Amino acid sequence: MLRVALLGAGRIGQVHAKSMTATTASRLVAVADVNAEAAQDLAARIGAEACSVDQIIADPSIDAVLIATSTDTHSDLITRATAAGKAVLCEKPVDLSLDRALATLKAAEATGQPVMIGFNRRFDPSFKALKAAFDGGEIGRGELLSITSFDPAPPPVSYIKVSGGLFRDMMIHDFDMACWIFGGAPATVSAQGAALVDPAIGDAGDVDTAVVTLVWDDGRMAVIRNSRRAGYGYDQRVEVLGSGGLLSANNMLENTVEKITTDGAVSAKPLHFFLERYMRAYEDEWTAFLDAVTTGAAMPVTLREGVAALACAEAATRSLKTGATVAITPDMLG
Amino acid sequence: MLRVALLGAGRIGQVHAKSMTATTASRLVAVADVNAEAAQDLAARIGAEACSVDQIIADPSIDAVLIATSTDTHSDLITRATAAGKAVLCEKPVDLSLDRALATLKAAEATGQPVMIGFNRRFDPSFKALKAAFDGGEIGRGELLSITSFDPAPPPVSYIKVSGGLFRDMMIHDFDMACWIFGGAPATVSAQGAALVDPAIGDAGDVDTAVVTLVWDDGRMAVIRNSRRAGYGYDQRVEVLGSGGLLSANNMLENTVEKITTDGAVSAKPLHFFLERYMRAYEDEWTAFLDAVTTGAAMPVTLREGVAALACAEAATRSLKTGATVAITPDMLG
Amino acid sequence: MLRVALLGAGRIGQVHAKSMTATTASRLVAVADVNAEAAQDLAARIGAEACSVDQIIADPSIDAVLIATSTDTHSDLITRATAAGKAVLCEKPVDLSLDRALATLKAAEATGQPVMIGFNRRFDPSFKALKAAFDGGEIGRGELLSITSFDPAPPPVSYIKVSGGLFRDMMIHDFDMACWIFGGAPATVSAQGAALVDPAIGDAGDVDTAVVTLVWDDGRMAVIRNSRRAGYGYDQRVEVLGSGGLLSANNMLENTVEKITTDGAVSAKPLHFFLERYMRAYEDEWTAFLDAVTTGAAMPVTLREGVAALACAEAATRSLKTGATVAITPDMLG
Amino acid sequence: MLRVALLGAGRIGQVHAKSMTATTASRLVAVADVNAEAAQDLAARIGAEACSVDQIIADPSIDAVLIATSTDTHSDLITRATAAGKAVLCEKPVDLSLDRALATLKAAEATGQPVMIGFNRRFDPSFKALKAAFDGGEIGRGELLSITSFDPAPPPVSYIKVSGGLFRDMMIHDFDMACWIFGGAPATVSAQGAALVDPAIGDAGDVDTAVVTLVWDDGRMAVIRNSRRAGYGYDQRVEVLGSGGLLSANNMLENTVEKITTDGAVSAKPLHFFLERYMRAYEDEWTAFLDAVTTGAAMPVTLREGVAALACAEAATRSLKTGATVAITPDMLG
Repeated sequence: MLRVALLGAGRIGQVHAKSMTATTASRLVAVADVNAEAAQDLAARIGAEACSVDQIIADPSIDAVLIATSTDTHSDLITRATAAGKAVLCEKPVDLSLDRALATLKAAEATGQPVMIGFNRRFDPSFKALKAAFDGGEIGRGELLSITSFDPAPPPVSYIKVSGGLFRDMMIHDFDMACWIFGGAPATVSAQGAALVDPAIGDAGDVDTAVVTLVWDDGRMAVIRNSRRAGYGYDQRVEVLGSGGLLSANNMLENTVEKITTDGAVSAKPLHFFLERYMRAYEDEWTAFLDAVTTGAAMPVTLREGVAALACAEAATRSLKTGATVAITPDMLG
Repeated sequence: MLRVALLGAGRIGQVHAKSMTATTASRLVAVADVNAEAAQDLAARIGAEACSVDQIIADPSIDAVLIATSTDTHSDLITRATAAGKAVLCEKPVDLSLDRALATLKAAEATGQPVMIGFNRRFDPSFKALKAAFDGGEIGRGELLSITSFDPAPPPVSYIKVSGGLFRDMMIHDFDMACWIFGGAPATVSAQGAALVDPAIGDAGDVDTAVVTLVWDDGRMAVIRNSRRAGYGYDQRVEVLGSGGLLSANNMLENTVEKITTDGAVSAKPLHFFLERYMRAYEDEWTAFLDAVTTGAAMPVTLREGVAALACAEAATRSLKTGATVAITPDMLG
Repeated sequence: MLRVALLGAGRIGQVHAKSMTATTASRLVAVADVNAEAAQDLAARIGAEACSVDQIIADPSIDAVLIATSTDTHSDLITRATAAGKAVLCEKPVDLSLDRALATLKAAEATGQPVMIGFNRRFDPSFKALKAAFDGGEIGRGELLSITSFDPAPPPVSYIKVSGGLFRDMMIHDFDMACWIFGGAPATVSAQGAALVDPAIGDAGDVDTAVVTLVWDDGRMAVIRNSRRAGYGYDQRVEVLGSGGLLSANNMLENTVEKITTDGAVSAKPLHFFLERYMRAYEDEWTAFLDAVTTGAAMPVTLREGVAALACAEAATRSLKTGATVAITPDMLG
Repeated sequence: MLRVALLGAGRIGQVHAKSMTATTASRLVAVADVNAEAAQDLAARIGAEACSVDQIIADPSIDAVLIATSTDTHSDLITRATAAGKAVLCEKPVDLSLDRALATLKAAEATGQPVMIGFNRRFDPSFKALKAAFDGGEIGRGELLSITSFDPAPPPVSYIKVSGGLFRDMMIHDFDMACWIFGGAPATVSAQGAALVDPAIGDAGDVDTAVVTLVWDDGRMAVIRNSRRAGYGYDQRVEVLGSGGLLSANNMLENTVEKITTDGAVSAKPLHFFLERYMRAYEDEWTAFLDAVTTGAAMPVTLREGVAALACAEAATRSLKTGATVAITPDMLG
């Protein structure tokens, strides 16, 4: 059984704490947070100890850490934890700065320690089934990938301001999905976007609605649609057109009830948000991390892949500004 | 926190053990089984004590028991546990003998102890949503209820022989669903059935495929379709036609992936069997029981309702034999 | 090109007139109706002649007649038209009296003239595809057939009174579907029904909601659900459980639009009534009749099959009265 | 009743001939084609006269013409027919040259004759229902429109070479749909594309798979996905995300049959191609044209709108070449 620690006791940290305590393959022994009270509360609830980050990193009995702190601390914590000989599962994105993420990649790879980035959607049962069918050649060669990713409501503008922007904060998931499904990284990125949901988001220099097209070297394309506000819930769909057919993974609904009256047929909305939709994915993500650490197998999502998603976000940001297609160059991928 | 014990450490007992240990509202302290080794194994895994049934019933510190033993012991255990002042959650069916079930009802009601019957489907999120919509008048007055309940594969014939027959063993769930949704009990029962899946089931005096029509006093009808073998999985659907429209609760699928090729569009099968489909329902059933015990509220599924479902099964058995519609008389309902 | 005549210029006659004039394989030359004005109006619109029934039957240049008059005239017209050497397509039901229908069968068969009964649903593209898949063995041996057939609104009570009752007037279609899909005729019929939609229908001695179970000699079962009022439209579904899976044919919707808001996902209702749903089926029915007449092939729906459906209706009527299962005896099938 | 003529007796001309002869509001009196035999064949079948284009345009008794000739003749025929005082329904696209189309627009508008462009998809019942719901404010203000338009198989490369390219030949429909739904014309166009289906299409200087993003002045976006080969059929979907929800119009399927076995649930493919999917739309298009001509109401699709779609195609072509976003300037819209 691996002895593990959780860095970050906020909302997403608490989500992870559930998975970390549900399995018998790891024992969550320590929790750290800049807010000491939050760490103590969570630690008490799950029978762990509240510690400082320094204590955890210095503790040789701790095998692995899950980093769920604010994004600006990720690079530093990955670097320090791997240097201390620990396996790392770090929340997305790696960093808001591609340069810093590249430096972190270099440092972490030098330690030989396994690092996984928390792209939870790869562990969603439907997306996994789509990926397996696609890799199994069920629709032939991939041609056109489409990813829809709409949130039910935008975060506060205060969050938007420090988020790194829609491409680094939200679409980063979809960049990873696209690279995961098609393999490698795209050659070019073209972005269009606007603040249609809330002008305050535009005033903060960000967009809340965007369409980004990725093109691979061999011409395959992926188009990603993001909105910060779908209203009806969390809209998470993936569709791949291949030479032999179409694969799609659709939303999960709140229930299977349908009502037909003179007003038409009414069925349930999609599951509300990421906690509802991806609860199972978070659990499977943690298990997959433990499995890889224990067996020494390759990480299911590598730090290098986390950097590639960030490179897409960087390119999209530039494309949106210039109105031109931006190339992803090898130096952006580390 | 209620101190609770589990009687029966077989397959369904282990399912309940999960729910019983997942909540902080109860503490599972003891496990009993006629197979002492099974009780010890399970007890060890969950940190409880393996005891005899007698020890558990005699232990005043135990507030409630969950009865998941073989059906022929249900009546006796309900009677003894309630007499000992314990709250009871008992698996379906109450008994294979309606007479014995009626006696148990009388005895248990005399103690004033709360007894709940484990009709887990009432706690399925989709069926709950359908029931809520129906009770909310969303399709007006109910007219015709249809319940589809197909298992993926028949149990061994050895089990069939002691099961009490399809109506008491399998359709008992659907009788309860019908009574729950429409309220009260039907006035008459008409049954048709045959052994189409496996002649050995016919040789054992049972049917594996059946259609039963229930008619309420005011003319409302419910039709139940059962098959022991749907092959493609667990098919669990409910549909209500009302004066203002139609409500249906459909199957939950393994995933949301669809593949379209020249062969058509392929999507996932229903979740395989009751463990997959009703996992969440089992958890919510236990929580609902604990809530009712703690607050003194009415049981979500009463022993009396368990008897009513058995009365339907009894009537269906007679109808199948005679080819005639059979009335449910007041004495059959206790 | 066949020279054909239409007997009956009412609603359903006008539906047939469309198909009869749309094809180049027949020429609609004459129209008759007890209401001479109705015959003249229709004849004028389609460039045919308004005649009396006697004139049409006496006219040797007319090869075939479509009988769309009131049900009480069917037997007589079939008998006279076949005796006059004409091919006949007659609307369902053959008759309200099984005895009379049997006599008509005997008389018509003696002439050797081809007679088809207008069970239009057999020509619906979805039901045809289901039947083809079933006959192709795609779900193995049939076990349990389910037919749902709800009208959007009941006809006037004045019509109900002369309709022969729900089983002969409405469920006759479903009896035919069951016999068509499973082959042959059932061994027994069990019926339940009530007047839930409109008490006046009950006062007229009929039911408006019914469940009928048919059992074949080998144990295969079919359950038919009828309601005179679904409100949301015409609900026409068929489902077959076989040893290897499930086949279902579902409703056609008004359009494919879906709207998702916080209130859920709303999609279109089923097509409103039989004219919308079965327009294509009526056209294909007429073409199939012409093909069979021209090539001398077997009729797609025989008079004998029309009698079998009526025998089921007769048995259901008796079962509803007695509460007992009623056998279909060979003498009921002619 | 309008006297009308058909210019062009090829595949699409024959489709229109059906609609033109099915209604009593117009009488198709003349057919012309560069292939005299084709014109004679069609004319004979429908009881019209085969004439030359010149004869038709010179014939003052002909009120309207439907132009279904090859694209390179559209501008000239629109100009001559309107100059001759005839109403015109012309197949898409107006022209392959935006300059020529603009000149035609100027000339035709000067005559005051009504001209409609045959964007048949606007008359599809599902797209019409979506448009009506959107215009009715059912999902609030539009934000992100998505159009999927995949053909079952690419045309011959010989056709591709004279087609004007995917944007002018195929995506022209989707440009029109986007402008129709969102109103007006986009401010900018960004295109990505590749020859993934057939390298010969690439060798011919065209693409067969493309993603184009349109941005309106106020930030609203539309993304169009095209593929020349979906394999499974004609994939025609529209989706609009608005401030209050999502509207989508999905494919129509060949039938409503579903088969569930251990291999999953199989349902029908989309209707094969445009003739199957849009048969009804072609009929309604013709009726709408006749209505507008007769009543003097505005054309349901104006020549000016046909030019706007072509301007989008022109911009997309340039964007694909340069990798930059291209603005639609007022001079491009006439």
